[in-house]
Amino acid sequence: MLPHLAVSRRTRSTPFTSRVEAAGVKGYTVYNHMLLATQFDSYEADYWHLCEHVQVWDVSCERQVAIVGPDAYQLVQLMTPRDLRKAKVGRCFYLPLCDEDGRIINDPIAIKLADDRWWLSIADTDVVLWAKGLATGMQLQVKVYEPDVWPVAVQGPKAEQLMSRVFGESVKDIKFFGIQPMTYQSPTGAVVFQVARSGWSKQGGFEIYVDNAIAGQALWDELFQQGQDLQVRAGCPNLIERLESGLLSLGNDMGYDTTPLEAGLEQYVDLEADVVSLSLAALRQHTPSKRLMGLVLDSDAQITDNHLTIEQQAVGEIRSQCWSPKYGVHLAFVLCQLQPLGNNLEVNVQTTAGSQNARLTELPFEFDKLGLNAL
Amino acid sequence: MLPHLAVSRRTRSTPFTSRVEAAGVKGYTVYNHMLLATQFDSYEADYWHLCEHVQVWDVSCERQVAIVGPDAYQLVQLMTPRDLRKAKVGRCFYLPLCDEDGRIINDPIAIKLADDRWWLSIADTDVVLWAKGLATGMQLQVKVYEPDVWPVAVQGPKAEQLMSRVFGESVKDIKFFGIQPMTYQSPTGAVVFQVARSGWSKQGGFEIYVDNAIAGQALWDELFQQGQDLQVRAGCPNLIERLESGLLSLGNDMGYDTTPLEAGLEQYVDLEADVVSLSLAALRQHTPSKRLMGLVLDSDAQITDNHLTIEQQAVGEIRSQCWSPKYGVHLAFVLCQLQPLGNNLEVNVQTTAGSQNARLTELPFEFDKLGLNAL
Repeated sequence: MLPHLAVSRRTRSTPFTSRVEAAGVKGYTVYNHMLLATQFDSYEADYWHLCEHVQVWDVSCERQVAIVGPDAYQLVQLMTPRDLRKAKVGRCFYLPLCDEDGRIINDPIAIKLADDRWWLSIADTDVVLWAKGLATGMQLQVKVYEPDVWPVAVQGPKAEQLMSRVFGESVKDIKFFGIQPMTYQSPTGAVVFQVARSGWSKQGGFEIYVDNAIAGQALWDELFQQGQDLQVRAGCPNLIERLESGLLSLGNDMGYDTTPLEAGLEQYVDLEADVVSLSLAALRQHTPSKRLMGLVLDSDAQITDNHLTIEQQAVGEIRSQCWSPKYGVHLAFVLCQLQPLGNNLEVNVQTTAGSQNARLTELPFEFDKLGLNAL
Repeated sequence: MLPHLAVSRRTRSTPFTSRVEAAGVKGYTVYNHMLLATQFDSYEADYWHLCEHVQVWDVSCERQVAIVGPDAYQLVQLMTPRDLRKAKVGRCFYLPLCDEDGRIINDPIAIKLADDRWWLSIADTDVVLWAKGLATGMQLQVKVYEPDVWPVAVQGPKAEQLMSRVFGESVKDIKFFGIQPMTYQSPTGAVVFQVARSGWSKQGGFEIYVDNAIAGQALWDELFQQGQDLQVRAGCPNLIERLESGLLSLGNDMGYDTTPLEAGLEQYVDLEADVVSLSLAALRQHTPSKRLMGLVLDSDAQITDNHLTIEQQAVGEIRSQCWSPKYGVHLAFVLCQLQPLGNNLEVNVQTTAGSQNARLTELPFEFDKLGLNAL
């Protein structure tokens, strides 16, 4: 039997925890000091449902770091090598946050709510402490805090249909990575939530930034009532889906040990930008020695060692992996050492069936170019 | 069945995880992004064993934040309202870390390894990010980082006996909250570890700051070989023991929502000290509105509501609680609202047997003054 998660006040519950438990959650993790479901049925059953129907996810653990005040842009820009000078209000931005050595501290979705008001919707490190330290040390005119916001994600191909039943047709006008206030007619009156077209899957959907626990619970229940014929059910970020879609996980695939250039996040690093960012000087000088790549193992044997080799020499380490039921192969994200790897794309993986050959490829996976067809 | 903890690379394993699992760990939590066992047998069986014998704990999750350089003292002093001017090398210090509003960010054990080298052995928030932000913003001459150190605690009344078998008699000379380098003769040669007389129980014992994974694993095995006749077994911080002993838990009992004066940590706040500390100005002005207190409920009914009342008015919230098998009562840590509470020490608690009276008391519990005798 797998060890259970010992729940305490420190591993914070959310306004939706009782509903997640009633839905039969089987596995939890702790993310930003908060409960996050990992599994309701098998990973594979959860996966197929997400790809075919619509799921409601309690992603309250995507905590918001609010940065508010006249120096808000200055502080956010300091933390990221992405040029935010042209960022528009009402838009979301995927940002690597990096320290003076160019190492990744977090990879939030930044939301520009107003010129002097940003939210960072964070991955699993206490960004609020770094931002507070910088603001204090540099005497910036900003308030930095974690407001109580509990995002709910609605994900899957039927997400737009379900959301339009609850929020009205105008929800369809929200563009990808757009965010706008939407009215929800709760049983106790109208409430306004920020709603973005976003989410940690590539199946389409929205994230609702619930900042009112009672109305949020009514919203959760309404989504389930309105979605019965759409086969709505409770879900969570899914390991298989996120690997197939090339979505990176901080702490698993990259983090303090990697720069964004090593993690394949070049498009979010503006090396030439004339902005004040802590990491840009280091990143301009940086020659990556590692690279995060995809791995395809065309075998149903189990992988027994995370280390990849070529002629017994270590060339990389598996950071995340799964069996892809859609393509009938193992998929993995691998941190490769560029020096021994060279131009080789064929590597050895240890499995229950002995040493097997596997292919490296750039991320995200391009299954057609790899000659892989959905089964 | 309780939901399992989904283990991933992000919920870091430790050099001792395979040994913890072989010892039959039943429950885990995630602490500083790392696995921490919470239970091997029942909480009560784990408790009695800890009070009578000796346990070896994998507390690798007590991550070290190293602060190294000429401005090391300046940065540590900025973060805490405790006066560290007279701190001696080779000593440990319990420190509240507080922000400009006097709110608690963490409560590490600070270790002064040299005048220009401190370690903060942290509770469950990313102190490294706050320290890095402050150091960057203030351009301090320090390096701030989390070295790979995996503390092992040896706790219980037979801890000294076991430790002296492994490290020699001189380990007995280490005073409470003293720390010194000790030699361990590992199978592959002598290694030196910092060893402190400390640990998160009041049963006596030591913490070994393992910074060599292979030698640490040999040490773990040696402790079990040498301790067979002492009934050594794997353990972990125990909810019952820590409540009886009045040991606070960040995120459970106090945190961002409390100041050290509200959490009963006055003795670690030097309001009059002439030092540069971020929180002292706020704490000097601060009139606590809350207070962390102990609660004794002399009933074996289950508590069904965390809110305490007097004549239906809310006066406090239970933050941690357990059944004390030694005293035959429920014990709890309660955050009380001073305004409605006044001088009252009798409160109502909702239980499976209806509303019951319970007593508030200062922490730590003084069982003799409360008229409670060990059963």
